[in-house]
Amino acid sequence: MSGRVVVLTGGVGGAKLVLGLAQIMPQERITAIVNTGDDFRHLGLHVSPDIDTLLYTLSGKASVARGWGRESESWNFMEALCSLEGPDWFALGDGDLALHVLRTARLNAGTPLSAITEQFAKAWQIGVRILPMSNDPVSTHLDTDEGPMSFQTYFVARRCEPKVKSIGFMGGAEARAAPGVIDAILEPMAEVRAVLIAPSNPYLSIDPILALTDIRDALARAKVPVVAVSPLVGGKAVKGPTAKLMGELLIPVTPCAIAAHYAGVIQGLLIDERDSAEGVEIACAKIDTLMLSLDDRMRVARAALELAQQIAR
Amino acid sequence: MSGRVVVLTGGVGGAKLVLGLAQIMPQERITAIVNTGDDFRHLGLHVSPDIDTLLYTLSGKASVARGWGRESESWNFMEALCSLEGPDWFALGDGDLALHVLRTARLNAGTPLSAITEQFAKAWQIGVRILPMSNDPVSTHLDTDEGPMSFQTYFVARRCEPKVKSIGFMGGAEARAAPGVIDAILEPMAEVRAVLIAPSNPYLSIDPILALTDIRDALARAKVPVVAVSPLVGGKAVKGPTAKLMGELLIPVTPCAIAAHYAGVIQGLLIDERDSAEGVEIACAKIDTLMLSLDDRMRVARAALELAQQIAR
Repeated sequence: MSGRVVVLTGGVGGAKLVLGLAQIMPQERITAIVNTGDDFRHLGLHVSPDIDTLLYTLSGKASVARGWGRESESWNFMEALCSLEGPDWFALGDGDLALHVLRTARLNAGTPLSAITEQFAKAWQIGVRILPMSNDPVSTHLDTDEGPMSFQTYFVARRCEPKVKSIGFMGGAEARAAPGVIDAILEPMAEVRAVLIAPSNPYLSIDPILALTDIRDALARAKVPVVAVSPLVGGKAVKGPTAKLMGELLIPVTPCAIAAHYAGVIQGLLIDERDSAEGVEIACAKIDTLMLSLDDRMRVARAALELAQQIAR
Repeated sequence: MSGRVVVLTGGVGGAKLVLGLAQIMPQERITAIVNTGDDFRHLGLHVSPDIDTLLYTLSGKASVARGWGRESESWNFMEALCSLEGPDWFALGDGDLALHVLRTARLNAGTPLSAITEQFAKAWQIGVRILPMSNDPVSTHLDTDEGPMSFQTYFVARRCEPKVKSIGFMGGAEARAAPGVIDAILEPMAEVRAVLIAPSNPYLSIDPILALTDIRDALARAKVPVVAVSPLVGGKAVKGPTAKLMGELLIPVTPCAIAAHYAGVIQGLLIDERDSAEGVEIACAKIDTLMLSLDDRMRVARAALELAQQIAR
């Protein structure tokens, strides 16, 4: 199979799809455009959770059991931090810290996030091109029944418990796509075969990417099919607060609502076989989208590309 | 025994004396004034090697075998850092990192080093008062046969191999003693019984402290005996580059030269029984100053206090 594939992705769920893609096509032809709306500074360290999840997943270092961070991680930093009465609400593994410390030092020295990410991926021999959506700061903020809060406060410190009223992306209107992002979507020489939207949380992980005007414009101008993989499996989210959030935002937890949310952006939606396609007015296909094994990931990646191919015909 | 004791100290050797003192008198009556000339920023993190050695030693966390850092340390941060092609010349243990990260975050938020050190010591239930010599930046620089270099480049990266021509303390002339330092030396209510100079490297660990004008003035005005413990044991340094350095600076490796170096500052010198007191014109006493066991540390501490008491009579 020739041509390139671009994937818009958040962390864990999205990384599964990218890993599946990397099994069925040359890694060098895959570009992952990664959400940085969850990025934040903790103890002065710049943490990029979704980029790190991609780096760990694609280099075979991700923890399977925990669902985030590194396999065989140790926690002596956190233990010492707690003994010094430092903040313990955000867990930083000993190995994980290396990315945050080195990234922060390089950012502070003026190196852009995209160049740092490229160097990390290269050091770990990752063939997939991992691009932060932007080198400019964009941060996801939530208005909740407990007042406004930052993404990490909501997601980690408060474990998604507050009821969400609305979501905003500070800096999103001003931010520009990182170098390479627009080219990856539009460059005619790149022979882009499909743009996929990973089954990440549409509201928290994909919307920050779509909040960037130049990315949204490029997607509208792109001559290739844009296909989203529904994050719902049997009317629920596999992991994370997608379904809870949809309920709070008074959105029906259905593929139809996902299609409506991405209206104007996607031309196709890959739906879990347990869910109903009722009301979905764009091209769609059904498959078991639950990604437990590597085979599952490959199956979903293949189905998403096939749907894109059908649309392109 | 009543009264307070002040110790000017560097890292490892000095911490041994302070630990010995802490066994023979109430910890609350001991003030350690610690060299910060070795402090530096590495990967954006503020590292205070001598303060940390005091913290580890007095909380029972110091590695005995390695001679620096923490006991039962793990190195997963360094392993990950190396895999990312980050700088590997300065070893940062996983637990050790907690001090650097938390200290840096608080310094960047405007908290002075002395307040941070006090909080760390309190969290680890250390009774000895640990004071950085200054909250202002002072950095030890060396002129060597390989050109000028910072202390850590000389000490860690180059393993003290370059020949030293001269030593300077950038910022030393402008820096002021940290809050509490001058009071600890001069306060009449404090009933200071002795000021000790630990057997740390005089040129690299004690001189930065003495480079501070207000500390040197306070020592001159202090009405208590100032007693140094010679860093030489049988004509050699126990650890570190003291003897090598003295040779390069064309200073005889003798207690007499140590006494001459501290002339005007000390009134007494505690000398190792293997060394000659020839030419030492101030009060002195001889004892086995090699500190291997805790008993050794107590013996040296006791002898230093006794020499101070003799001088005071």
